[in-house]
Amino acid sequence: MPDILHKVGIKSSSLNDVYSALTEIDNLSAWWTTDTKGGTKVGGALQFRFGAGGFDMKVLELHPATRVLWQVVDGPEEWIGTTISFDLKQNDDWTIIIFKHAGWKQPVEFMHHCSTKWAVFLLSLKSLLETGKGAPYPNEIKLDSWE
Amino acid sequence: MPDILHKVGIKSSSLNDVYSALTEIDNLSAWWTTDTKGGTKVGGALQFRFGAGGFDMKVLELHPATRVLWQVVDGPEEWIGTTISFDLKQNDDWTIIIFKHAGWKQPVEFMHHCSTKWAVFLLSLKSLLETGKGAPYPNEIKLDSWE
Repeated sequence: MPDILHKVGIKSSSLNDVYSALTEIDNLSAWWTTDTKGGTKVGGALQFRFGAGGFDMKVLELHPATRVLWQVVDGPEEWIGTTISFDLKQNDDWTIIIFKHAGWKQPVEFMHHCSTKWAVFLLSLKSLLETGKGAPYPNEIKLDSWE
Repeated sequence: MPDILHKVGIKSSSLNDVYSALTEIDNLSAWWTTDTKGGTKVGGALQFRFGAGGFDMKVLELHPATRVLWQVVDGPEEWIGTTISFDLKQNDDWTIIIFKHAGWKQPVEFMHHCSTKWAVFLLSLKSLLETGKGAPYPNEIKLDSWE
């Protein structure tokens, strides 16, 4: 099954700050979507909304400063059951996120879209941590007429 | 074999302008790397350089306003033999690029890096066509300490 892979390095940040950006409502709201709610603990469900649509993510694993794993429990059909992982490590002065959105059934056009859109939001996360300002929905870069 | 997939829409552009950005040296130099040379016709080889390293791409297919296909003939070991395609279509006021970098042998960390880096450069291409200004190497967003 094809996966969406990304890697983003954040300069002069820390494993703890990046982990916090992936696990706290206020921080998630500052880089992915301003409309973020829900439970942040293991077994909880995060709700990310983008206007009418969105995703519900069950938190499967939380390893402080190391790894976050979610599973999609509601959202577009292509996303349900897929998993999203963020693995963290330090390279010199850079904190690195190894990202994987795994379990897509087919490499449909929507998967192409979501791959680039993940990059847009991971660059928003990088900007948030490097400059204090992200570009979460509804202020992120748009990639198609239906966005 | 895993692929890198992306999709980028460019607003108020045209199939011909996007095709030109993918097939002419001056335009490639304005969004990917300022150090671009070589043959642009089918069977020719484009040389893209990023400081000491870079890629040589053989032009395999050129279908005006529709499709461009390259094959990597020199560069990092992981890239050699892989193919890079750009398929173009119009959605309302948006010109859409469906991008695929196919033929990776393994989903190594360098593939994660290249996936995000392709997004960075495709967003540079989008910016070039929407605003007249791209961010080619050496002025693109950096993602790790070794860049």
